[in-house]
Amino acid sequence: MPPKGTAAVRRLLNFTTQARSYSAPADRSIPAAKQKYVPSSGTYPKGFLAGSAFAGVKASNTKYDDLALVVSETPCPTAAIFTKNVFQAAPVKKSKYFLAARQDHAFRGVVVNSGCANAVTGSVGQEHAETMARTTDECFSDAADEIPKTLVMSTGVIGQRLPIDRITAAIPTLHSNLGSTHEHWLNAAKAICTTDTFPKLISRTFTLPSHPDTTYSITGMTKGAGMIHPNMGTLLGIICTDAKIEDRSMKRLLDIAARHSFNSISIDGDTSTNDTVAFFANGAAAPPDVDPIATPPPESQRSRWSEDTKAFISVLHDFMTDLAKLVVRDGEGATKFVTIRVRSDISQATAKRAAVSIAKSALVKTALYGKDANWGRILCAIGYAPGIMPSPELPEVVPPKTTRDQRRKQIQPSNTSVSFIPTDGSEELKLLVRGEPEEVDESRAKQILEMEDLEILVRLEDFPGDSVNEDYKVYEAVMYTCDLSHEYVTINGDYRT
Amino acid sequence: MPPKGTAAVRRLLNFTTQARSYSAPADRSIPAAKQKYVPSSGTYPKGFLAGSAFAGVKASNTKYDDLALVVSETPCPTAAIFTKNVFQAAPVKKSKYFLAARQDHAFRGVVVNSGCANAVTGSVGQEHAETMARTTDECFSDAADEIPKTLVMSTGVIGQRLPIDRITAAIPTLHSNLGSTHEHWLNAAKAICTTDTFPKLISRTFTLPSHPDTTYSITGMTKGAGMIHPNMGTLLGIICTDAKIEDRSMKRLLDIAARHSFNSISIDGDTSTNDTVAFFANGAAAPPDVDPIATPPPESQRSRWSEDTKAFISVLHDFMTDLAKLVVRDGEGATKFVTIRVRSDISQATAKRAAVSIAKSALVKTALYGKDANWGRILCAIGYAPGIMPSPELPEVVPPKTTRDQRRKQIQPSNTSVSFIPTDGSEELKLLVRGEPEEVDESRAKQILEMEDLEILVRLEDFPGDSVNEDYKVYEAVMYTCDLSHEYVTINGDYRT
Repeated sequence: MPPKGTAAVRRLLNFTTQARSYSAPADRSIPAAKQKYVPSSGTYPKGFLAGSAFAGVKASNTKYDDLALVVSETPCPTAAIFTKNVFQAAPVKKSKYFLAARQDHAFRGVVVNSGCANAVTGSVGQEHAETMARTTDECFSDAADEIPKTLVMSTGVIGQRLPIDRITAAIPTLHSNLGSTHEHWLNAAKAICTTDTFPKLISRTFTLPSHPDTTYSITGMTKGAGMIHPNMGTLLGIICTDAKIEDRSMKRLLDIAARHSFNSISIDGDTSTNDTVAFFANGAAAPPDVDPIATPPPESQRSRWSEDTKAFISVLHDFMTDLAKLVVRDGEGATKFVTIRVRSDISQATAKRAAVSIAKSALVKTALYGKDANWGRILCAIGYAPGIMPSPELPEVVPPKTTRDQRRKQIQPSNTSVSFIPTDGSEELKLLVRGEPEEVDESRAKQILEMEDLEILVRLEDFPGDSVNEDYKVYEAVMYTCDLSHEYVTINGDYRT
Repeated sequence: MPPKGTAAVRRLLNFTTQARSYSAPADRSIPAAKQKYVPSSGTYPKGFLAGSAFAGVKASNTKYDDLALVVSETPCPTAAIFTKNVFQAAPVKKSKYFLAARQDHAFRGVVVNSGCANAVTGSVGQEHAETMARTTDECFSDAADEIPKTLVMSTGVIGQRLPIDRITAAIPTLHSNLGSTHEHWLNAAKAICTTDTFPKLISRTFTLPSHPDTTYSITGMTKGAGMIHPNMGTLLGIICTDAKIEDRSMKRLLDIAARHSFNSISIDGDTSTNDTVAFFANGAAAPPDVDPIATPPPESQRSRWSEDTKAFISVLHDFMTDLAKLVVRDGEGATKFVTIRVRSDISQATAKRAAVSIAKSALVKTALYGKDANWGRILCAIGYAPGIMPSPELPEVVPPKTTRDQRRKQIQPSNTSVSFIPTDGSEELKLLVRGEPEEVDESRAKQILEMEDLEILVRLEDFPGDSVNEDYKVYEAVMYTCDLSHEYVTINGDYRT
C-alpha cells in the first residue's frame, strides 16, 4: 500500500508504480525493454582490437570496468569532432592538439575512462589527459612518438580530478585485454557507459561501387545518457572502419555525416564539456591497388564527388544516425523516442531552430511523458525559439543568403500545421491545420502516445503539401529526442554520489 | 509501507515522501510554507476597484472564481508589455491594438480569465477577446467608445477556445462584485491563478520628492507558475498606482522597470504566448496642482531625469522585482528560490546570456533540487549559452558597441569563479576560483543547500574583486529561478486534465 500523503504525492506514486523506471539498475543488468538494442554478435572491421579494464575511477565503483581501449593494428588516418562548449574538458583540448599536430595522420587508437570527465580541472587535468595517452602509447610495440598517437576521452562528473595513478596502473592490463571478438567490443562499449542502461555498439558491412567484391566493415560505440545536446560531436563516440581513406579526407567526411546524425539529437538541451566523436579508418580490408576515398569537393559540387565517396558518405551518415539514435533511446529517464520533423519554406535555419526549441522544451517533454496531446506547447516552443523570437540578447539572425522574398515570410499561425505521425504506419493525427485547431479524438491521441516511438511533424509553410511552382522550396530539419520524466529528476538530483 | 519496486522507484519514493510537494492542493488551500507570502491587509491606491466572479471557464472547475476585473473609477493612462513569442495569444493581440489605437489614453481597466489562454484559436479567438473587452465596457456608466477602454488577459491551456457565453454572462456579476477592500483585491488575485499555490498580491506606499506630504500607493498582482521565461512582460501582471503620470510616459517607465524585474525570472525557460503586464496610473492621490511624472529623456541622460521621475522609477522597479520574485517563489514544483548573479568584464549581454543559460539548465536545476553542489554543471551551462557558444544556427552575437579590447576577451576557466552565497549572511562558499576547483567542504555545501533560498555568484572577470583602473568595468546580470523537481514533472505531465 502506498504511503499516505497529499494528492500530489499520490499522483506521483501513480506515475512511479506504472513501472516506468528506465535508469541503470545498480547491478548494471540491462532492462528487458532495452535488450533488443544490444547485439549478440557483429562483424567487426579488420585490423582493429578493443578491450576494457577496471581502474576504479569513481570510488563507489568497485568492480565494473571503467577503462576502454580501441586500437588499430597499424597506424591509421583519424579525425574527430568536439564539443563547442567554451569550457572544453582537458581530454578534448589534448585530443584536438594531437590531431592538429599530427595532421590527422597515423594514429593508433583511443583510450577512454568513465566515472570522471576531467573537465574544469586546470593545468593538472591537462597533464593527466596527456599521461593517459602517453602511457597507452608505451604499450605499443612501435616506438612512442613525440606527439601521442592515442586520443583520449573522459566522461563523468565535471570538476573532479582523475585518479591518474589508478588509471596508469591499469593501462598495461587494458592493453593485454585487447581482442577482436564480439565480446571484446561489447566490453569496451560497456566500460564507457555512465548512466546508460545498455551498451551502445553497432556494426555493419558495406561495399563500394568501384570494387563491389570487397566487403568492408564499420563499427561504432557511443554512450549517453544526460547532458546531451551536441554541437559537433556528442558525448563519446568511436567509429572504426577498414575502408581506405586519405588522411586529409577524414575530417570532411566526419563533419558531413555528423551534421544530421549526432548533431540532431537532444536529451536535455545541455551541451557537454566533453563531447567527442573519433573516427578511424585503417584500410585493412581494401585491396592493395584500390585508391583511398578522397577529399570530396565542396558540398555544392556534390555531382563531382566520386561514386565511392558518395557511397561511403551515405554509409557513414546512416551508420552515425543509427548510433546517435541509440543515445536518445537511452536518454536519462526516457520512456519515449521522439522524432521532431519541421518543414519550413523560410530557411533551413528556421526549420532547425524550431525543431531544436521543441526538442528542448521542458513543457513539451513532460507532456509527452504524461501522454498528453498538449500541442499548444509545441507551438509555444516554436514561437520563442532563439533566432525566431527576437530578444535583446539574441537578435534574430538572418541567414546570409536569404532572399528578399524569404525575409518577408514570417512564421505565423495561419501557415502552421502540427500532426502526430504514428510509428505503426497508421494514419496521421492532425492537431492544428494552418492555424486552426482540429477537433482531436483524444482516445486516438492517447493510443498514439502509448507507443514508445512518436513522430511530431510541424509544417511552417505557406502551401503545405502543394507544389505551387518549381521555385517553391521546402527545407526540413529533424531532431531526435526523448521525454522528461520523474526518473530524469531522480537521476540528476543525485548524480555525484 | 512503500510498494516494492526497482531501486530507482525506491529512490523516487524517498524523494516524494520527504514532503516536498509544493503544487496547488485540490481544495486550493495555501500550503503552510507559502502562507507568509500572502498579505492579510494592504493599502490600495485611491480610485481603483477590484473583484472576481465565477464563470466555469474550465469544465473541471465548478466553484472557484475564474474571472477578475480591475478598474479605475476615472479613465487613466495605461501601458502594457507583452510576450515576444511569435505566436501571440488573441488577448495579447487585441490589448496591443487597443493601446496603440487609444495611444495609451483613458483606459478603465482590465478583465482577466483563467482556465483557458485563448491562444492559437484563430480568428474566432480574436472575436472572443474583443467581446470580453466590449462586454466589460458596457458595464461602465460612461458611454462605450469605438475602441474598447478595457484591456483583456487570458491564462490557461493553449489551443482551446473560450466558453465565451459563460464569460459574457458572468461579466455583469463580475462588475457588481467590484470593491476597494483588501478582500476584493485578494479575490481578484486568486481568480487569475492557474497552477499557482498562492495568490500574489502586494501593495506599498511611497512619496515623491517634489511634494513629500502626499502619500501614494501602488499595488499589483501576478500569477505563474509554469511556462515562465518572460521576454517583455511575463505571465499576467497588473499594476495600479494613484500617482499622476503623463499618458506618453507610461510605456517608457514600465519598460525601464521591467528590464531587471519581470524580465529577469525563469522557471522552465518556456516563454509563454500570453505574457502581459499592464500598468495603470489614475492620479487619484495627486494634489490638483502637481505636474504629472513626465517622459524621461533617454537613459544615457539619466542626470536630466526629474527627481520625481527618478524616485518613481526606483519605486516601480523595486515593486515589480518583488512581484516577479513571488512568481519564482511559486514556480511549478519549486522547492528553492535561487538568485543567479553573473559578473563579467566583457559585456552586459555576456553576463545576461550566462545567467539565463544557468537559469534554464535542467541539470543545474535538478542538482539544486537534489541539494547537490554539482558546480560543474553551472560551468557547463555558461559554456554552451546561446551567443557564447557559437553554433551554425546562432552565431555569436557581438554587441554593437563592443570595443576591440572587449572583443579580444574570452570566457575561459582561468578567469571564471563560482561561489554559493548563503542567504543567512554566513560566509561565501567558494567552489571554483579562477578555474581551479576548491576543496569543497561537502557538509558545509549541504548546509547551504538545505536553505530554501540560495545565491549562485559567477565571476567571469580577469581581475575579480580587484579594481585595477578607472576604465575597468564590470557588468552584472541577475536572474531569479527555482529548481526542477519531480513535482514539476507531475504537474506538467498531466496539465490539461
